[in-house]
Amino acid sequence: MKRHVYLDMKSIEEAREIFSRIWVEKKTLPEETPSKEALARVTSEPVFARISAPSYHSAAMDGIAVRAEQTFGTTEKAPKTLRIGRDALWINTGQSLPSGFNAVIMIEKVHQLDDHHLEIRDPAYPWQNIRKVGEDIVATQLLLPQNHRIRPYDMGALISGGVLNIRVWKKPKVAIIPSGSELIHHGALKRPEQLKKDQIIESNSIILSGLILENHGLPEVYDIVPDIEDDIRNALRKAVESDADLIIINAGSSAGTRDYTAEIIKEMGEVLVHGVAMMPGKPTILGVINGKPVVGNPGYIVSAFLSFQEFVRPLLLNLQGLSPPARKLVTVKPSRDIPSRLGIEEFLRVNIGKVGERLIATPLPRAAGSVTTLTRAEGIIPIPALSEGVSQDEEIEAELLVDDEDLMNTLVIIGSHDITIDILGDEIRRGGRNIRVSSGNVGSLGGLMALRKGLCHLSGSHLLDSETGEYNISYIKRYLKGIKVSVFHLVLRDQGLIVAKNNPKGIKGINDLVRDDITFVNRQAGSGTRVLLDYRLEQSGINPDSIRGYNHVEFTHMAVAVDVLSGAADCGMGIFAAAKALDLGFVSMEREQYDLVVPSSMLDNPNIQALLETIRSPGFRKRVEILGGYDPSRSGQLCIELTN
Amino acid sequence: MKRHVYLDMKSIEEAREIFSRIWVEKKTLPEETPSKEALARVTSEPVFARISAPSYHSAAMDGIAVRAEQTFGTTEKAPKTLRIGRDALWINTGQSLPSGFNAVIMIEKVHQLDDHHLEIRDPAYPWQNIRKVGEDIVATQLLLPQNHRIRPYDMGALISGGVLNIRVWKKPKVAIIPSGSELIHHGALKRPEQLKKDQIIESNSIILSGLILENHGLPEVYDIVPDIEDDIRNALRKAVESDADLIIINAGSSAGTRDYTAEIIKEMGEVLVHGVAMMPGKPTILGVINGKPVVGNPGYIVSAFLSFQEFVRPLLLNLQGLSPPARKLVTVKPSRDIPSRLGIEEFLRVNIGKVGERLIATPLPRAAGSVTTLTRAEGIIPIPALSEGVSQDEEIEAELLVDDEDLMNTLVIIGSHDITIDILGDEIRRGGRNIRVSSGNVGSLGGLMALRKGLCHLSGSHLLDSETGEYNISYIKRYLKGIKVSVFHLVLRDQGLIVAKNNPKGIKGINDLVRDDITFVNRQAGSGTRVLLDYRLEQSGINPDSIRGYNHVEFTHMAVAVDVLSGAADCGMGIFAAAKALDLGFVSMEREQYDLVVPSSMLDNPNIQALLETIRSPGFRKRVEILGGYDPSRSGQLCIELTN
Repeated sequence: MKRHVYLDMKSIEEAREIFSRIWVEKKTLPEETPSKEALARVTSEPVFARISAPSYHSAAMDGIAVRAEQTFGTTEKAPKTLRIGRDALWINTGQSLPSGFNAVIMIEKVHQLDDHHLEIRDPAYPWQNIRKVGEDIVATQLLLPQNHRIRPYDMGALISGGVLNIRVWKKPKVAIIPSGSELIHHGALKRPEQLKKDQIIESNSIILSGLILENHGLPEVYDIVPDIEDDIRNALRKAVESDADLIIINAGSSAGTRDYTAEIIKEMGEVLVHGVAMMPGKPTILGVINGKPVVGNPGYIVSAFLSFQEFVRPLLLNLQGLSPPARKLVTVKPSRDIPSRLGIEEFLRVNIGKVGERLIATPLPRAAGSVTTLTRAEGIIPIPALSEGVSQDEEIEAELLVDDEDLMNTLVIIGSHDITIDILGDEIRRGGRNIRVSSGNVGSLGGLMALRKGLCHLSGSHLLDSETGEYNISYIKRYLKGIKVSVFHLVLRDQGLIVAKNNPKGIKGINDLVRDDITFVNRQAGSGTRVLLDYRLEQSGINPDSIRGYNHVEFTHMAVAVDVLSGAADCGMGIFAAAKALDLGFVSMEREQYDLVVPSSMLDNPNIQALLETIRSPGFRKRVEILGGYDPSRSGQLCIELTN
Repeated sequence: MKRHVYLDMKSIEEAREIFSRIWVEKKTLPEETPSKEALARVTSEPVFARISAPSYHSAAMDGIAVRAEQTFGTTEKAPKTLRIGRDALWINTGQSLPSGFNAVIMIEKVHQLDDHHLEIRDPAYPWQNIRKVGEDIVATQLLLPQNHRIRPYDMGALISGGVLNIRVWKKPKVAIIPSGSELIHHGALKRPEQLKKDQIIESNSIILSGLILENHGLPEVYDIVPDIEDDIRNALRKAVESDADLIIINAGSSAGTRDYTAEIIKEMGEVLVHGVAMMPGKPTILGVINGKPVVGNPGYIVSAFLSFQEFVRPLLLNLQGLSPPARKLVTVKPSRDIPSRLGIEEFLRVNIGKVGERLIATPLPRAAGSVTTLTRAEGIIPIPALSEGVSQDEEIEAELLVDDEDLMNTLVIIGSHDITIDILGDEIRRGGRNIRVSSGNVGSLGGLMALRKGLCHLSGSHLLDSETGEYNISYIKRYLKGIKVSVFHLVLRDQGLIVAKNNPKGIKGINDLVRDDITFVNRQAGSGTRVLLDYRLEQSGINPDSIRGYNHVEFTHMAVAVDVLSGAADCGMGIFAAAKALDLGFVSMEREQYDLVVPSSMLDNPNIQALLETIRSPGFRKRVEILGGYDPSRSGQLCIELTN
């Protein structure tokens, strides 16, 4: 069986340069559109005014129309009386200047003596307070240049200048061909729960359509094409013969056996680039058929998104006479070291929040297939091909995916993760506040370290002191010396063993972990759950080496639950809510205390105030109780203030 | 006749505060929409995943599926042979993991021995290179919080999470009632040239509709209502009874006799604010009828725009759960002193360009009725109510109306204005370049001064040295001492007297200016045209005091031509092209030289290079020739380089 590999991978810049040669001077055709419907369209030629505006002399103020000559010599000491109807006429802003009159005196300077007479105390000079013909627009004047994107007031200028129709570049049409035998159209499912094993709901075409609309193109989504060479060829031929300006064939561009796309493009036209040194996005294909650009977009959603941004977006904008706007960059400090592969440009999705004067970026999972790494990200850090990564002590630029002010309203929580933190983020917003919660899961101890370095607003911690039986306090005293902190209760929660549904292996407690038929999944060192487990193992005199899977670690409760659900492990230690979310079994072990540690200097921060208010609210407590395995009755209570 | 005055004018902040009380907690109703059509909509409730994604284990790499246990012990020195079909199965990214297999080895690590056998040199650990169930999305997980504006990849997350429909806030409906007896609908004119005296094409509703669409609302434009009290009352009643969330009644809000709006709102509901201390925008009315917000928007377009931005926009966004994004502010330096009225916040439209390290703002005309002051502006400077203006030596913040990078591409030309500068700006863009030309008209001498202060990239000048008969050089030597400049020819142009069509008063030359029946309009001191006139008057022995209108000055050729067209003057000195543009008569006097003065240090600036390239192009020269009265045959030639 023949396997393709990316023999000739190009850098992003090289790929873009090669691809742009085929379209750099290309535009869609011009079309005529009514000016009043031209919002956000782009002029294909300069636009000149047909008529002047205003087209007649009119009053620029409310007041009276007069003949200037008649007012000459008027002073404060020698006021002049004017007869209404003969010497002066009432006139309003915008009204036509009556014939024979040549000045307007504003209402505030006119004293009405009686129904028929007015007094003025200043002279008027000719043409004062009058909007003259052509004051705004003169016929033949350039109203809008070529390649100009039309804003609301541009439409006003067009209409005022008598230009009722204008020529604009047609919106580029983009054919999107989703391919993959595993894909199913969302409309084909009566209920999403009917999804069969081996099926994936096709969603890339929806994301690509949204991106195309945002860049003022017109998407046309084709039917899903299975991984059959002839079907792909036919779909591509149909798109080439259509009036599409650009074709995106999604998926089918990896180096797998289903990779017919590159071969078919080569057969019908030319493959310009196959493989780009970017991650995600490596399997991108750039080609051309009959002069029409064709992009083989990778199947993984983050790859498809980045490939679109780097290669399709500039083309789409260029086709309608626009340049891509500058990316919105900010300088961030990573909340931990971020290694990256040499020789490939990596695009890392990150949470970003402002802590003190710094923007702190916390990496999200790297999985190219994870759409939630985009939805949850505030930014993307491009790590250059020639870098091996970024250390915690460096600063680096990130491209923003949200508005600047969203960063001001991002609360950075680093520490032990808990499902109630998601609810917290939602409940804060539910109250109408525009606050986002960014949570970095580095375990309880990692959180305290981050707090010490000023990398977060607060941290979540559930560290048991095995000597005192108390949570968190002794750790804070040891690791946050010199920092005044306030510790607030968040929840008490049930910790235990997450097991398969109905507990088929009959696991009763940690003594079962040493059984030969049991595979365990652990949490990372430094996490509160790991501290708790190790403490209980020690108490029970169990040697960790006797547990199969003790060294296989995950970083969140949900990851542990997913391992159990998938059969990768028989059990793992975690919270009840994670087991319940995936409909798994649970063997309860303890009720532990999960606290929020806040530097006291941050207590004035209105976002922190909003957070405390939220966790004290009945709404939050009710939702936490529904999750199961939580006791939120003391949520938000000040546990202790430590002046280390 | 009763005249309204703004007895109780509020500051912008006060007005907003009073108005927002009636809507601050108000939202439109939620409605259900298909997720794939939800782009840019706003969630009205949090959205949770219905299914997990992926819903089955699949390969995360192209390669082979194996049983991990079978690979244990494999090393570089002890490779292992696997039989295809039994020990290993080819698998592609995204394919379902075959039953009984639990790891994937990537293609690059597999060596094919023959058609039936493969060799591996590393062991696989269980679940390596496998996308596990729920890796991206776990059923019940929070996908999007409430009040979240949906981006393309958010739609992907919704579809992947099995959420095919979501609840969003309805788009707010806005009823727009244009009022004014002088207004005519653009559709009522077969050709815009048919516009009658006293008629204005109604365009504010089009601008407001565009602004509403940009803020995700749904505009509904009512028929134009004449200034008849009952008609306005009926239109307003219809809007109040409709499903509109908000009503804008445009115009009819000045203190003129047509001002029925405030009275009618008071009669049907409550006027909260009448008159705001802002300019333009003072006559704004804010009211409420049956709980429905009603905004009386001023008739002048810039007033209407600013009133919309300050009062309607926050309401529109709030109704759909959004906060207004922060305004994009930049620090600018005015190119001249800008006085402003105390006690009122003034919004000044400005051109902004980057000269050296500074952003230079040049004020555009203040006229509230001039839509082109918006279309031509790069920014708006709000001058606070408590300030009497900004001096040339201060810095002040401006709100940007364009993208940052547009400022980098704005060429600032300050000096004498010429119609060819407009064409220049257009021709540069016609070539596909994204360069804007900002031109400040302060006369030739003012331009040289601005150049000396580093306030512009180049200046346009046509200063005649009456002793040498040469243009510009002696002035540059005197005023730009110490600055190395290059002087480029732009055009030779016909200067003369602009007179009414067919020259009814038979004006033959400057000797006629002293005639009793002739009113003249002059240019401002420091302008090249004024220098030329004064030189010719002196040559002819004419005393300026004997010319009627000598002290009435305008700042541009077109302004002079408009004065002649309007009858405000019988003639004025200016260029042929201005007379031709308005179909006026012209008495030629001379062919003068108009040059561009560029600091030699700026010659490397690619925008300057583009400008020089453009004025040397046949396209530019041809268009200039069509204007008439110009000789562009030496355009772009280096006239002289002066190392002062």
